[in-house]
Amino acid sequence: MAVIVCHCSGKNNTKNGVPTVHNRISFTNMKKSSEIYRQRLETLRAELKREGLDGFIVPRADSHQGEEVPACAERLAWLTGFTGSAGIAVVLKGRAVVLTDGRYSIQVKKETDHTLFSRGDITKKDAGEWIAEYSSEGAEIGFDPWLHTPEQIESLREKLVPKGIILRDAEINPVDEIWQNRPPPPVGTVELYPLRYAGISSSEKIRCVAEKTRDSGACAAIITMPDSIAWMLNIRGSDLRYTPVALSFAIVHAESRRVDWFITPDRVPQEVHKALGKNVCITGPHSLWHEVTKLAGLAVEKQKPVMLDFKNSSIWFKNVLESGGASVISGRDPCILYKAVKNEAEQEAMACSHRRDGLALTRFLAWLEGEDKATGTLTEISVAEKLEEFRRQDSLYRGPSFATISAFGVNGAVVHYRASNEGAAKIKEGGLLLLDSGGQYEDGTTDVTRTVAIGKPSDDMRRHFTLVLKSHIALADAEFPEGTIGTQIDMLARRPLWQFDMDYAHGTGHGVGCFLAVHEGPAGLSPKCTEKLMPGMILSNEPGFYLEGYYGIRIENLVLAERTGRLNHLGVEMLRFRTLTLVPLDRNLINADMLNEREKHWLNSYHNQVRQTYRDVISKDEATWLKQATAPL
Amino acid sequence: MAVIVCHCSGKNNTKNGVPTVHNRISFTNMKKSSEIYRQRLETLRAELKREGLDGFIVPRADSHQGEEVPACAERLAWLTGFTGSAGIAVVLKGRAVVLTDGRYSIQVKKETDHTLFSRGDITKKDAGEWIAEYSSEGAEIGFDPWLHTPEQIESLREKLVPKGIILRDAEINPVDEIWQNRPPPPVGTVELYPLRYAGISSSEKIRCVAEKTRDSGACAAIITMPDSIAWMLNIRGSDLRYTPVALSFAIVHAESRRVDWFITPDRVPQEVHKALGKNVCITGPHSLWHEVTKLAGLAVEKQKPVMLDFKNSSIWFKNVLESGGASVISGRDPCILYKAVKNEAEQEAMACSHRRDGLALTRFLAWLEGEDKATGTLTEISVAEKLEEFRRQDSLYRGPSFATISAFGVNGAVVHYRASNEGAAKIKEGGLLLLDSGGQYEDGTTDVTRTVAIGKPSDDMRRHFTLVLKSHIALADAEFPEGTIGTQIDMLARRPLWQFDMDYAHGTGHGVGCFLAVHEGPAGLSPKCTEKLMPGMILSNEPGFYLEGYYGIRIENLVLAERTGRLNHLGVEMLRFRTLTLVPLDRNLINADMLNEREKHWLNSYHNQVRQTYRDVISKDEATWLKQATAPL
Repeated sequence: MAVIVCHCSGKNNTKNGVPTVHNRISFTNMKKSSEIYRQRLETLRAELKREGLDGFIVPRADSHQGEEVPACAERLAWLTGFTGSAGIAVVLKGRAVVLTDGRYSIQVKKETDHTLFSRGDITKKDAGEWIAEYSSEGAEIGFDPWLHTPEQIESLREKLVPKGIILRDAEINPVDEIWQNRPPPPVGTVELYPLRYAGISSSEKIRCVAEKTRDSGACAAIITMPDSIAWMLNIRGSDLRYTPVALSFAIVHAESRRVDWFITPDRVPQEVHKALGKNVCITGPHSLWHEVTKLAGLAVEKQKPVMLDFKNSSIWFKNVLESGGASVISGRDPCILYKAVKNEAEQEAMACSHRRDGLALTRFLAWLEGEDKATGTLTEISVAEKLEEFRRQDSLYRGPSFATISAFGVNGAVVHYRASNEGAAKIKEGGLLLLDSGGQYEDGTTDVTRTVAIGKPSDDMRRHFTLVLKSHIALADAEFPEGTIGTQIDMLARRPLWQFDMDYAHGTGHGVGCFLAVHEGPAGLSPKCTEKLMPGMILSNEPGFYLEGYYGIRIENLVLAERTGRLNHLGVEMLRFRTLTLVPLDRNLINADMLNEREKHWLNSYHNQVRQTYRDVISKDEATWLKQATAPL
Repeated sequence: MAVIVCHCSGKNNTKNGVPTVHNRISFTNMKKSSEIYRQRLETLRAELKREGLDGFIVPRADSHQGEEVPACAERLAWLTGFTGSAGIAVVLKGRAVVLTDGRYSIQVKKETDHTLFSRGDITKKDAGEWIAEYSSEGAEIGFDPWLHTPEQIESLREKLVPKGIILRDAEINPVDEIWQNRPPPPVGTVELYPLRYAGISSSEKIRCVAEKTRDSGACAAIITMPDSIAWMLNIRGSDLRYTPVALSFAIVHAESRRVDWFITPDRVPQEVHKALGKNVCITGPHSLWHEVTKLAGLAVEKQKPVMLDFKNSSIWFKNVLESGGASVISGRDPCILYKAVKNEAEQEAMACSHRRDGLALTRFLAWLEGEDKATGTLTEISVAEKLEEFRRQDSLYRGPSFATISAFGVNGAVVHYRASNEGAAKIKEGGLLLLDSGGQYEDGTTDVTRTVAIGKPSDDMRRHFTLVLKSHIALADAEFPEGTIGTQIDMLARRPLWQFDMDYAHGTGHGVGCFLAVHEGPAGLSPKCTEKLMPGMILSNEPGFYLEGYYGIRIENLVLAERTGRLNHLGVEMLRFRTLTLVPLDRNLINADMLNEREKHWLNSYHNQVRQTYRDVISKDEATWLKQATAPL
């Protein structure tokens, strides 16, 4: 899944400047009549008046600051009609705006009514700047403290305070007040995550997290990222469509190593209760305020601060703690790095899920080759469904890890394209099919992109594909000293393209969880990601090239950073990547003359490995196809 | 001058993790008897007791947070004996420490008495962590608010507050109280910097800075970096040995565009007064507190904040402003980016000074070639003096831009080596001479490193030199889209070395001023420098290779970022570097078989340009040497 953002912060947002490819919600169905939105906006303004507010900020965010949010948190879509994954609305008395980044500039125009909302590019003028421009001195602008991080509020304040504009913490979100028939919050059941995949017991993980918290000088850490909680407690949930987490919060006490887990107790089966043991105290979410206030008292008593991730957690926690007299220090979620550096069991589980996922995609490609493209029966949607069918044959498959991007021809150049049932393009000769998909398996999360020529490709297609392949190999084949950061590796992939005045407007890679989020921080490969790469991290390697009006190309495998066993001459350990994804690359799109010996060797070895892995577990016809698809160059 | 640090912040420090090569002060002469330091430490402890302090922090810093400090600010050296350019001492009642980074680990042991000071690696345990470990709850640790930035104090607080340790702003620095015969502050005369080099009048520059300040919402900006003031006012000074600045402060008022310049009026000649005009109000430094307090009152009245650079300015200003009721916002020194992006006149002046500086070095290399290395009369010091002699022949030469690194043989592998008169190595056959030097000219600042084989080099020397040359060319020859950051470019240079498990523990390049600081922020080429490169920036390109116990190799030219005139397929302007430094590279050290065609082409074109530039302005003998030294490969 192509990502453009820096995932260093462990969350997906656009404030880092470079947008993320996102493709959750099809927007063609969602255009409602302007009248509905006009009414909603009017009702909201009336509500703001009642509460004495001159304006209100509606970000696309939930109280966990996650990339994927439940339906009940889609306030931005409900209010404005805009269904993109990143954006923020501001409603003032006389005007309102929806701010998004470049990739949503077309969508926001389609989905929102310009007579109600003006539209702006958030990378040019952010919410704070917009408010500062259109509000007068003394204006009071409300925000929901559950939906903003302390860093976001700080950034807003920096722009508003000099203009004498007041930011006010709204105790109740006025959108929630007026949203009739708002979907209920998800209440899926929690399940245990087997130790054979997790590798480390939850009690051991809790010990590490508590120690890290203690080392920072804090008496406790508040954990608000659902995938951190899932990792720490060795549990998985079903509250979101693509990410197997339970939306919940936790407090880890540094000394006692006790965990307060805030989740409705009846969502937690007995076996999970039992496995977690007495040190994990399950408490209903309604007592969160009470318990956080109690923690504040405890912190005052111990004269120690409480740790909160100011980048990834809601400011609500900071406010409650400080109201209780506690000092709050900003510290990165103590789970985040443990979660990113996969242990041996996780590495093995991920590799195993990748072999089975790669088998499904390989069989799909064999099937696609045999299909008739002249009849026009294949569409972007139908091929994606067929791929899903192959994936479903695996008993550990649990569903897609994100909404498949199936983009044919010109659609491939729209990086965040999402096909709809009505408008799906037909697959026919002469175009490129870009298929970016992934699966959630009990033993791992996958994410893979293949670009396939339908019929005979043009010389330009082959030249561009081969350059993207050179970029992909530059990363796959790299060796680098420990301490190298994502930005440096990103550069390796871009270099072959820059030489021909080509580039791609997204990052080269993002971290991926183990049966968790397909976008996982803190590491990433992008111009903005300064996180050091460590052995055990799993990242995507997905350079691309998008020729507007013609086609798009992306080649994506997941890679595992590992030790080479060698030191460089300064005594620093040299690392390399091991490619986990095993699926043939379309040889018809490769111009072998453009590859050097080392690149050819990489490709031939890779294809050889693919062939060896699958040839004995597929049908004879499939094996015949695989043999030619992976033949040496 | 090899730099290891990220100069993004516009200052040179080690907190960024990677150290800077620094070589200001020879340390062999400076070892004083332990007794002196014992007495000083005891006197300081008595003074601290008198002031009710449990400890005190002594950084190597002055009130301008500059890399180069005047003698009166060498408190760390006076107290501990340690003369390195980066370090910090902490004196507690029962123990004291000097914290430095890896490049000073040997020097700090030589220069300080271990019975008085323990030594620590600041990159492993910084001052805050050290204090937290060795102080008890309730301890009061003093600091001089002139010598720390708000960010540094914030970082200290983060470590000390959780442990209940109190940081106290010392009104008078106790070291100054006990330092007898402390050198007086420098009071050099200021001179005008001609418009033909500066390109833009000071009134125009002040207008830009005032507008930038106003745009940030502030009523005024406080400028504390002396080179920013020199740039803005088109003046130069002589308060430091290598950097032609006047140590002073300024306030720029956003609306009135008035500048308050705090410098003893009699240091400013009439013609400078006149040139600056009525809008620049010169005030003695003694009235700084009064004027900053007045500014605070003004800010309160206008309900606007004052802008201060929390990374590069002393916290003293923040404290005084806040005491006066003003709100202070952190904003980067508004001159810093203007200063870094050279205008056309500056670019031309820099190119011109580089041609003359290159001529001096080229003539030196011709001379060196002719010298007899068997007699042992040449030393690291004598060759550096000879080079200086060639430079002095230029009428615009004003002195070195930093202390020359002349390192022969094994000394070349010590990245921050500084030869001393007594211990200078003899130059003889079979070794490599690494010569890193630069000049201050009225029209520009230079910085160049050449590595020369004395006698016949070994195959390994040639292999290593050629790999460093490949790194150098990878950067010199790069084309990249606007928006590319220093870290990305840094990677281009490292890639050829990484492939052979080689690397260098310093950055690839740093910004350079125009007859200003040889290390100038905010741009740089290093793993930590995320500043975007812009056309007009001038940076060093200096990859290296250091084989401990054998030799060191570095190749350094300055380059100017400029537009290619082309857009990439995304519509982003493509940039490239133009090499300003023109001096032959030692052909005896190049293994042509290791260069590809593009690299050979770059080298031959470069040498051709060197030859064309100098052949008609040098002696016949020199021209004969130059012809073979720059002959095509």
